[in-house]
Amino acid sequence: MTSFSRLVRFLAKDGRTYYGDAILPRGVSDISKAKQAKIIQGQIFGKHEVTDQIADIRLLLAPLSPEDVKTVRCLGLNYEQHAKESNMPIPKYPVLFYKPATSLSGPTDPIPVHPLAQEGTGLDYECELVAVIGKACADVPESKALDYVLGYAVGNDVSHRDWQLARGGSQWSLGKGFDGWAPYGPGIVSSSLIKDPQSLRIQTRLNGKIVQDSSTKDMIFGIAKTIAFLSQGTTLLPGDLIFTGTPQGVGMGRKPQPVWLKDGDVVDVELEGVGICSNKVDFTNPKSKL
Amino acid sequence: MTSFSRLVRFLAKDGRTYYGDAILPRGVSDISKAKQAKIIQGQIFGKHEVTDQIADIRLLLAPLSPEDVKTVRCLGLNYEQHAKESNMPIPKYPVLFYKPATSLSGPTDPIPVHPLAQEGTGLDYECELVAVIGKACADVPESKALDYVLGYAVGNDVSHRDWQLARGGSQWSLGKGFDGWAPYGPGIVSSSLIKDPQSLRIQTRLNGKIVQDSSTKDMIFGIAKTIAFLSQGTTLLPGDLIFTGTPQGVGMGRKPQPVWLKDGDVVDVELEGVGICSNKVDFTNPKSKL
Repeated sequence: MTSFSRLVRFLAKDGRTYYGDAILPRGVSDISKAKQAKIIQGQIFGKHEVTDQIADIRLLLAPLSPEDVKTVRCLGLNYEQHAKESNMPIPKYPVLFYKPATSLSGPTDPIPVHPLAQEGTGLDYECELVAVIGKACADVPESKALDYVLGYAVGNDVSHRDWQLARGGSQWSLGKGFDGWAPYGPGIVSSSLIKDPQSLRIQTRLNGKIVQDSSTKDMIFGIAKTIAFLSQGTTLLPGDLIFTGTPQGVGMGRKPQPVWLKDGDVVDVELEGVGICSNKVDFTNPKSKL
Repeated sequence: MTSFSRLVRFLAKDGRTYYGDAILPRGVSDISKAKQAKIIQGQIFGKHEVTDQIADIRLLLAPLSPEDVKTVRCLGLNYEQHAKESNMPIPKYPVLFYKPATSLSGPTDPIPVHPLAQEGTGLDYECELVAVIGKACADVPESKALDYVLGYAVGNDVSHRDWQLARGGSQWSLGKGFDGWAPYGPGIVSSSLIKDPQSLRIQTRLNGKIVQDSSTKDMIFGIAKTIAFLSQGTTLLPGDLIFTGTPQGVGMGRKPQPVWLKDGDVVDVELEGVGICSNKVDFTNPKSKL
């Protein structure tokens, strides 16, 4: 389905932005370590070609350009231990909510915290495997669902618990949808390289300390089952992202007391075989990017 | 801000699809009655021009083309009497959820009901004023919020209560997000024509019988307040739609027992000064449009 192994979008040293296939040293799988990439020409979700032209990477950007992503679906409570730490029931069906595409940002972008989300307590991290839909689909059987996946990335479903829960009036999107609250990347590893997306270690490190450390095997609804379920009567489009839920260890659930993100904190989320997104919490530049 | 009065997108008798400015007979304000339109050339959210070229309308389509809409925000419980009939608290802040853009459809399209949503009970209608964002904005003060509105339409936030509530695991999006479950139109009336969007009669008729009949003056959070609130730290983009909530009278709240939509039912939603969306419930063609 894809001609690339590890899709990146990047600002090159020549000052231009490209899609590319990341070049990694032997034995390295973390895309955030890539210094160079083969430039991809054409449309990522259409005809494209990985060229032999190599560019030097200055900065990795969100792996898909904003115009290539329309819908960001997210699952809640998709790891049993996380549902328990959240004092929520284990779901019978996938729990679906959305983040707007404007919440997406790149693997090293700061996380801007608007004054509204500086109120009260509750700024939190959530490491998640992100599945990227590669071809339009609807009513996909579970057995064929992974054929529609372009590849996988790691993302941080940044959340403000006060706005997500009590103040959000029961709906979670408000406290999760601010600009820049869905950093993801560092690139998209082709599904042809990840034969089993349900056996990957996934972690969050807060200022270097491990706070979430789990495996995608612990998902309640695996990726194939999720795509089959969500596509019932609902068309998934190329470039749609699915954040597949977070394991235990979020700040809200920590003992003896919750741990909330502060200005200047650095949150690394890492997915085995994909790499690291490392984002700094920024209370000082709360203006939207506009 | 706009050069048109009543934006429509339509299939013309010449077999082509156009944007146009609807031509209405004197004294008629319901856009669904338009037989002709002046063709608009250019980009609706960029440089465009209402030409003198008149086309005959064969079929009105969703007023914005799919590529022009990214995000559909919806408010829950934004009319006090509806919150009460839903046995939900009156919200302190706007209650936000999303529908995917793939749920949008046109003012006379059938509402396809997937077998999943034929299970159990709970298929319901919700008439809503739809505000269309015309210019990118963030952190907009309430006093200027309406300057960013391109215009207004009427929409039906079709909902399946079982999937929205119990089976949705507390999050509403799943039971509201099926393909074709957000018909809207019949066109977009420029905000220059609707000076006060908070004094419009809004209705639903089910097979011709009035079941919702209210005024947008009863919104808890008016349109300006909603845009100011939602744009805090969050960029709203041209073409973003905001479904602003439904008044009392939905099927779920009817006495002595709920009224659920059945195959073949016709639901008309109407907004004063804008017109009628009339959509037939269709259990027989449940396949997605793909």
